Amino acid sequence: MTRAVVLLSGGLDSTTVAAIAKADGHDLYALTVDYNQRHRVELQAARRVAEFFAVKRHVIAPIDLRQFGGSSLTSDWEVSKIQSVADIGKKIPNTYVPARNTIFLSLALAFAETVDARQIYIGVTAVDYSGYPDCRPEFIEAFERTANLATKAGIEHSPFKIAAPLILMHKKDIIQWGLALGVDYSLTHTCYDPLPDGTACGRCESCQLRLKAFAELSIADPVRYT
Amino acid sequence: MTRAVVLLSGGLDSTTVAAIAKADGHDLYALTVDYNQRHRVELQAARRVAEFFAVKRHVIAPIDLRQFGGSSLTSDWEVSKIQSVADIGKKIPNTYVPARNTIFLSLALAFAETVDARQIYIGVTAVDYSGYPDCRPEFIEAFERTANLATKAGIEHSPFKIAAPLILMHKKDIIQWGLALGVDYSLTHTCYDPLPDGTACGRCESCQLRLKAFAELSIADPVRYT
Repeated sequence: MTRAVVLLSGGLDSTTVAAIAKADGHDLYALTVDYNQRHRVELQAARRVAEFFAVKRHVIAPIDLRQFGGSSLTSDWEVSKIQSVADIGKKIPNTYVPARNTIFLSLALAFAETVDARQIYIGVTAVDYSGYPDCRPEFIEAFERTANLATKAGIEHSPFKIAAPLILMHKKDIIQWGLALGVDYSLTHTCYDPLPDGTACGRCESCQLRLKAFAELSIADPVRYT
Repeated sequence: MTRAVVLLSGGLDSTTVAAIAKADGHDLYALTVDYNQRHRVELQAARRVAEFFAVKRHVIAPIDLRQFGGSSLTSDWEVSKIQSVADIGKKIPNTYVPARNTIFLSLALAFAETVDARQIYIGVTAVDYSGYPDCRPEFIEAFERTANLATKAGIEHSPFKIAAPLILMHKKDIIQWGLALGVDYSLTHTCYDPLPDGTACGRCESCQLRLKAFAELSIADPVRYT
């Protein structure tokens, strides 16, 4: 078995990616970042998902991005609510977290090098998404190049691959792929502004993209909404 | 005044870089990463240096890289000691920390974006150095490109610049530049394997590179050695 590091937030996309990495034949090393995010309840979802997939190791790494702020997810700014899913992606919303995926991938790279994994899976998508710059293919390609210049393993051995299998997919197709691989989406958490018990708001852009995809598939979303 | 983020370890190079950033006319925002390194005493040096330069803000960000290990600086491996400075850089030593500068620059990028700084200063050098891949110009250029694809500010406003003014310099010239800018090197800490009180070992590659440079300048190194 080869090894893969999976960035696992506990959301729909990263959970699907974990299923894909497993189906690709890897032993999974899951990395979840506790960045003191508003929706900390997603950490519980990440634990459930890691257990579901029987990962070899699950690291939950704390790095407090509230030290920097600059996002409604890491400050006391109100999470922007949207009227219509058609408004999503027109401009970068205030849920954008500065350098988040660069930080996450950097930590995943450290993890991968130390456990001798060459694949790092990340559940970014640049189709049904909020317009975050660090979810686009050009960012992933640039990071992969950086990773291979940055590391001992990258220059001495086979290079690292940043696998972003969902990056050009619609969310409904992501869900269909996940269901085909046996994913239980009731374990996941997507909402940026949940109640303390994890109940989703249904109105943030993240909820709306998820709800739209389940509606398109005529499948009930198994998570709870207010 | 424009703003600059400076990655400040408290060592000789990053302290010199802080002086350069200040001379370049920037208000300084210093970032020190507490990665649970063996030579934690360098955090005290970073605090002294930040105070010396009257930085606007000094963030000490904890991220425990011992979770991953893979280095004598973040595990119980013994720090490799060398017989001769001529051996340095021939192969990557066990003080290499997987993905360290990628992680540090990612955090600096988050800091820079939130304080509206466009310059990130880092004290890497690829001349009198240990052969770490993430100190080379090609890595710095790749990271800069990634940073500008990763961020809202990078794609909407003027791009980020990763300033590595020492990267092609010999350490003795770095010290000369620093002295010309008024740096007090007694504040700094370089050793990878110090005594608990901060006294330097004089035998690790980091000490040897420093001692050689001071010797070449016929200047006494103001820090204490065993």
